[in-house]
Amino acid sequence: MYKLVLIRHGESTWNLENRFTGWTDVDLTDTGVAQAKQAGQLLKAEGYDFDVAYTSVLKRAIRTLWHTLDEMDRTWLPVQKCWQLNERHYGALQGLNKAETAKKFGDEQVLVWRRSYDTPPPALESTDPRSEKTDRRYAGAANQVPLTECLKDTVERVVPFWNEAIAPAIQRGERVVIAAHGNSIRALIKYLDGVSDSDIVNLNIPNGIPLVYELDASLKPLRHYYLGDAEAAAKAAAAVASQGKA
Amino acid sequence: MYKLVLIRHGESTWNLENRFTGWTDVDLTDTGVAQAKQAGQLLKAEGYDFDVAYTSVLKRAIRTLWHTLDEMDRTWLPVQKCWQLNERHYGALQGLNKAETAKKFGDEQVLVWRRSYDTPPPALESTDPRSEKTDRRYAGAANQVPLTECLKDTVERVVPFWNEAIAPAIQRGERVVIAAHGNSIRALIKYLDGVSDSDIVNLNIPNGIPLVYELDASLKPLRHYYLGDAEAAAKAAAAVASQGKA
Repeated sequence: MYKLVLIRHGESTWNLENRFTGWTDVDLTDTGVAQAKQAGQLLKAEGYDFDVAYTSVLKRAIRTLWHTLDEMDRTWLPVQKCWQLNERHYGALQGLNKAETAKKFGDEQVLVWRRSYDTPPPALESTDPRSEKTDRRYAGAANQVPLTECLKDTVERVVPFWNEAIAPAIQRGERVVIAAHGNSIRALIKYLDGVSDSDIVNLNIPNGIPLVYELDASLKPLRHYYLGDAEAAAKAAAAVASQGKA
Repeated sequence: MYKLVLIRHGESTWNLENRFTGWTDVDLTDTGVAQAKQAGQLLKAEGYDFDVAYTSVLKRAIRTLWHTLDEMDRTWLPVQKCWQLNERHYGALQGLNKAETAKKFGDEQVLVWRRSYDTPPPALESTDPRSEKTDRRYAGAANQVPLTECLKDTVERVVPFWNEAIAPAIQRGERVVIAAHGNSIRALIKYLDGVSDSDIVNLNIPNGIPLVYELDASLKPLRHYYLGDAEAAAKAAAAVASQGKA
């Protein structure tokens, strides 16, 4: 049996400001840092250890991982930073306040953009200064840098990366932790657990609470659970769900 | 022409306590953190940028690199953590106070251990709890984990790593920063500049000040200089030189 640990980054400045973030590279708040440290303390206290860590190329996930590893005295572990684990790209909504966007376009339209599986938000213009097309951290991603994404699009970049890079590592016996984002984690869970298109959009991942997946030899999930206080995890997930209402 | 940037980690807790550190994994002091941040600010202000970073598997170097990259908004850069860039192993002196060791064994003996090119300090017993033989971060290093090292030994692990990993990266056009240690940086400089065995031991590297090497196409150094205030760099190097006197 394998164990895989998933951690959504701690609270970011734009989580706090209730803005659509996507690929915008915002940092953690002090609360987010505290959540990340607590994740590391929990993992250490529960006897978890790792051989390799994966994260996105966005600092809220990278910093979450740094604090987690630091608390575990594992700063020296190899870390793979991969754009494929980035948050879902939020297109032209990136930077907008969720509640204001809901006021302007209506709760229903925003809910479609946030929670439809296959309807992306309006795309960024490629000349928009918010576009990542010229950001050299994505040079290796070439034509795959999106201007918007629905969750389906996110699944279509997360799952191949899982199959090509992470799954083989786990099957080699490497203990893996992934520090990523609400939607890249959703994408992975959809694939692992075979969640339907309609159900996956209602799954909310709390910030900074280690989510453990126990996997069989073929990486089929046997069970999963949050570390620490289950009630706190449920409450945190509910808070995520209630964002973006006018 | 290529540019290579070398950074010795910021002040560590054992620098402050004047203890022999070697492979002991001590952390930065607040001063060390400030030095690391300043290194990043300097590099950013001077327009430096990188494609890949190398560091040791010791947290004082890793954390120095993290703070440096963070100040440059480059947390997403790939980082290679390599035991070959570790500090010189200080054998049975690891953990001992430098001044007390000088009182006990005499300034001259300690100077030999600190500054002889090819006389290692007394070796750790392999059963000594201070030994890294069972530390799994060195699992890949197998039989190469030392119980003590003279600078010559450090050169003999740093230089092959330079030739196999770092030099090819530079010649591929990757801009490289190395966050490492007094003696692993000395080892590299000895090789690059062809410094004699007797001269290299008198070269002192200040903590947390970026040292730039300009290299020609064959990686032969053209010139080198510290970034920022030259007088401050010289003063910091002199302070390093005066450690370990009774």
